[in-house]
Amino acid sequence: MIPPVTGRSSSDLELVRDWMGTLADLGGAAGMLGWDRETLMPPAGAEGRASLMGTLAALHHRELVREDAGDALAALAEDDGLSGDDAAAVRLATRARDRAVRVPESLVREISEASSRSVSAWVSAREADDFGAFSGPLAVLVGLKRQEAEAIGVGDEPYDALLDEFEPGARAADLEPVFAGLREALTPLVAEAAERPARTLPEREWAFDGQRALANEVAELVGFDLSGGVITTSAHPFTGSPHRGDVRFTTRFELGTPVSGLSAVMHELGHALYEQGFPGEAVRTPVHDAPSLGAHESQSRFWENQVGRSPAFWERIEPIMRRLFPDAMQGIDPALLHDSAQAVRPSLIRVEADEVTYNLHIALRFGLELAMMRGDLTVDDLPGAFADGMEELLGIRPPTTALGAMQDIHWADGLFGYFPTYTLGNLYAAQLADAADEALGGIDRAVANGEFLAILGFMRDRVHRHGARRPTRELMLEATGRELGPEALIAHLERSYLDR
Amino acid sequence: MIPPVTGRSSSDLELVRDWMGTLADLGGAAGMLGWDRETLMPPAGAEGRASLMGTLAALHHRELVREDAGDALAALAEDDGLSGDDAAAVRLATRARDRAVRVPESLVREISEASSRSVSAWVSAREADDFGAFSGPLAVLVGLKRQEAEAIGVGDEPYDALLDEFEPGARAADLEPVFAGLREALTPLVAEAAERPARTLPEREWAFDGQRALANEVAELVGFDLSGGVITTSAHPFTGSPHRGDVRFTTRFELGTPVSGLSAVMHELGHALYEQGFPGEAVRTPVHDAPSLGAHESQSRFWENQVGRSPAFWERIEPIMRRLFPDAMQGIDPALLHDSAQAVRPSLIRVEADEVTYNLHIALRFGLELAMMRGDLTVDDLPGAFADGMEELLGIRPPTTALGAMQDIHWADGLFGYFPTYTLGNLYAAQLADAADEALGGIDRAVANGEFLAILGFMRDRVHRHGARRPTRELMLEATGRELGPEALIAHLERSYLDR
Repeated sequence: MIPPVTGRSSSDLELVRDWMGTLADLGGAAGMLGWDRETLMPPAGAEGRASLMGTLAALHHRELVREDAGDALAALAEDDGLSGDDAAAVRLATRARDRAVRVPESLVREISEASSRSVSAWVSAREADDFGAFSGPLAVLVGLKRQEAEAIGVGDEPYDALLDEFEPGARAADLEPVFAGLREALTPLVAEAAERPARTLPEREWAFDGQRALANEVAELVGFDLSGGVITTSAHPFTGSPHRGDVRFTTRFELGTPVSGLSAVMHELGHALYEQGFPGEAVRTPVHDAPSLGAHESQSRFWENQVGRSPAFWERIEPIMRRLFPDAMQGIDPALLHDSAQAVRPSLIRVEADEVTYNLHIALRFGLELAMMRGDLTVDDLPGAFADGMEELLGIRPPTTALGAMQDIHWADGLFGYFPTYTLGNLYAAQLADAADEALGGIDRAVANGEFLAILGFMRDRVHRHGARRPTRELMLEATGRELGPEALIAHLERSYLDR
Repeated sequence: MIPPVTGRSSSDLELVRDWMGTLADLGGAAGMLGWDRETLMPPAGAEGRASLMGTLAALHHRELVREDAGDALAALAEDDGLSGDDAAAVRLATRARDRAVRVPESLVREISEASSRSVSAWVSAREADDFGAFSGPLAVLVGLKRQEAEAIGVGDEPYDALLDEFEPGARAADLEPVFAGLREALTPLVAEAAERPARTLPEREWAFDGQRALANEVAELVGFDLSGGVITTSAHPFTGSPHRGDVRFTTRFELGTPVSGLSAVMHELGHALYEQGFPGEAVRTPVHDAPSLGAHESQSRFWENQVGRSPAFWERIEPIMRRLFPDAMQGIDPALLHDSAQAVRPSLIRVEADEVTYNLHIALRFGLELAMMRGDLTVDDLPGAFADGMEELLGIRPPTTALGAMQDIHWADGLFGYFPTYTLGNLYAAQLADAADEALGGIDRAVANGEFLAILGFMRDRVHRHGARRPTRELMLEATGRELGPEALIAHLERSYLDR
C-alpha cells in the first residue's frame, strides 16, 4: 500500500524537525557543560562532570540513530517540494545519522575507552618524556580508528572517512598537492623572514583588568554583540555557543605583554562573530552551523591574521591602549606594537608558532597521520619521523619526544584528520581577504577608517548567513571566486613579512 | 511462564540503577543550565535557553515514565534481598515515577502553559498594581492545580498532594496546629521586640572586593570545600549542584552594609554544606539528596540564624572584617555588628523580613493557599484576605496589591504547598540547634572557640550523611529527639530578642 504523499511528507517533516531540535538542544547542553568545565567548574567536579557529559552523549547517540527519524529522512530525501532550508537540513542530518548508524555500538564504545586510556597514558608519558608508555595505547587507537573509517566507508581511503567528519567533502588526494605547494613556498619564505631582526616591547606590566577592558572594547569595535555574548578566561582560549543568543569565547592574558592576549581575542572573535551570524531562521537545525571546521577556522584566522596583524589595525587600537594603559604605553608607538606581533622564528611548539611557520607544523602532522592511516608509518616509528620532519621543514630538531610527536593531544584523543582544518582555515582566510580587499577597496583602508562593521558585513553576506547550507568548497568558491589553493596565503605572507 | 527470580532481580536492579543515573544526570544538566541562566547568560539567550531547558525537561519526563523502569521497580519492591540504600532508592524513585505517571500528559502541558501565562500576567500586573489583569490566569491555574492534586491522589485533601511534592509525608492537617501555635506565640513576641530600639551601622562604603573576600573566608571557616565549590553573585541568592564535587551558591552584596550580604552567605552556605555532605556512596540515585525542601531549609536557617546571628559569631568574624575593611570598620565593635543584624520590625516584604516576623508571613500564605485549594477562598477575594491577614498578624496593611497578594512569584508559577517548607526549615533548625547545644556543650561556646568544624560534624552525622534515606519527620525525630513543634523556635527567638 502506498501512503498518501502529502500527509505523509508533512508529518515526516514535523518529526524530523522535532528530532533535529532535540539533537541541537542536547548538543547545546553538552556545550554548556563543556564550557563550564573549562572556565568555572571546581577540580573535585571532574568525575561527576564526565559522567553527566557521558550520559548526554549517550542520549544524543540514542536520539541520532532513531529508526523513525531514519525512515522519515529517507522519505523526505525523495520529496521535491521541500524548501531549500528543509532540504539542506535533511541532507545534513542524514549525513550525520548515516555516519552514526554505520559504526557498530561496540566499536563506538571500544574507541571511547581506548581514547580515554590513550589520553591518560599521553598525559603521564609526555610528562616523563617516555614515548614507550604511550605507543601501546596509541597503536590500539590507530587500529580502531582505521576500523571506524572502514565502517563509515566514505572517500577513497580510510583517512578520508575521518577527515570527512571535520571537513565534509575534503579528500586526502586533494589536500596532498595543496600541502606540497605550501611546503615548497613556505620553506624559503621562513628562512628569509627569520633573518629579519625582531622588535619586542619593553619589559612592563600590563594589568589584567586593563587587558579585560581592552578585550571588551575590541570585541564591540569589530561588531560582537555583547548582549548575546560572554567573554571570560580559560587556560586554552576557545569559543562555544549553547544556543542562539548566547555565544561565548575565552581568552588568556599574559602580564608581560598585551599582544598575545589581543591576538587570542581576535582569533576567538572570528569564531564568535561567525556563530552570531548563523541564519536565525534555521535555528535548532544543522543548517544553523558552519559547514566544516575549516570554514570556522577561516573566520578566526581572518580576524586574527588578515585584520589583526595589519599596521592599520595597530594604528586604530593604539589610542584605546594608551587610554587603558597610560603608563605601560609610554614610548610605544603603533609600529612597535605591530612589529612585536610579527616576529618569525622557527620554533618547536605549534600553538605558539607565528603566522608564517604555523602551516609547516600542520603540513608535518598531516603527512604523518596520513601515513599512519595508510599503514605506511608505524606508531613506533612516529617519534623519529616527527623529528626528521621538523628538521627538514623548520631546520630544528625536537630535543625530546615530549616536544615532538607527543606535543599535541589530538592523536592521543583519536582526532585523526583534524589538523588539516587549521591550514584550510588559513588558506580560506587569505582568499577571503583578497575578495574583501576587492569588495571594500582594501581591508587596510577600511580598518584605517574604523569601518570594522563594513568588514563584518562582507563576511556576514558571503559566509555567515549561509550557515551550513552549502559544502565549504562551494561556499568558498562563491565567496572568493577561486578554488582552494596556497597562492593567496603565500602572497599575503610575502607582503606582510618580506616586502616591508 | 515464571521468569527465574535471581537473574530477574539483578538485571532489574541494573536497569533501575542506569535509569536513576540517567535521571540524575539530566537533572544535573538542567541545574547547570539554570545556574548559568541566573549568573552568566547574556540577555539575548533567554529564548534559546528556554527551548533547551524545555527539551531536557521533556527528555527527563520521557525517561521517568519508562514502562520497563516501572516494571523493574515493581519487581524490586517485592525483593527482600536489596541493600538498605537500594531499597531506599527504589522507594524514592517509585514515588517520583508514580507522581509523574498519574498526571495525564495533556494536564502537564496545560499546567505548564497556564503557569507561563500566569507568570507573564503577574509580571505586568504587579508592575501596574492591577490585580484584575492577573486574577483570570491565576484562577485557571488554581483550577488546574486542583485537578493535578486529584490525579495524584496523595493525602486526605487536594492540598496534601501538592504539599507532598515539596515535603514528602507532610499533611495540611498536621501543619495547621503547628502554624496556629506559631501565630499565637509570635504575635506578642513581635509586638514586644519591635519596641526595642534598633542600632544600625554608620553610613559607609563596603567595597565588593572585600565582601567577596569575606564570603570566601567565612565559607572556608565553616568548612565549605572550595575545591568542590563555586561562589558567585546573582540577583537572588541560591544554591545548586549539577553533580557531586560541584556545589555552587550565589550571594549578593550591598555597598552600604556588609551585614545583609553575610547573612545571605550564611544562608546559602547552609544549603551548600548539606549538598557537599550527601552520602557519596549513593551518587546518581535519589538517595543523594535531601528528603524534602523543609530538611534543606533547616540547614540554611541553622547556619543563618542559629549560628550566624549569635553574638559569638560576630565576635569571631570581627577580626576578619577589620583586616579586610580597616577603614569602614573604624569605631564598629562586634556588639554593634550583631545588633545591626537583629532589628525586628513588622514590614511588608517577606524576603526582607527579620527572623521574628518572617514566619508570620509564611503562616498567612499557608492559610490563604490552603483555603484556595479547599475552595473556601476565591481568587477574587485573595487581595482583601491577604491585606486583612497582614493587618491581623503584623499590624500593617499593604497599601497596594503589588505589595500584598501579588508580592511573591510562587502562586503565579503554580507553586502551591511550597511556602510552608520555609517555616518547617526554621522549626527544624531551632530543634537541631537545641540538639547541637546538648551534643557540643553549647553552639555559642563552639563558635567562640572557632570550632565550626565540630558544628559541621554534628550536622554531617545527624543529617547530611543520611541523604534522603529516611523521610524528613523520621530523620528529624532521630536527630533532635522531638516531634515537630514551634517550642524550640519560640524559645530561641525569646532568648535572642527579649532576654538580652
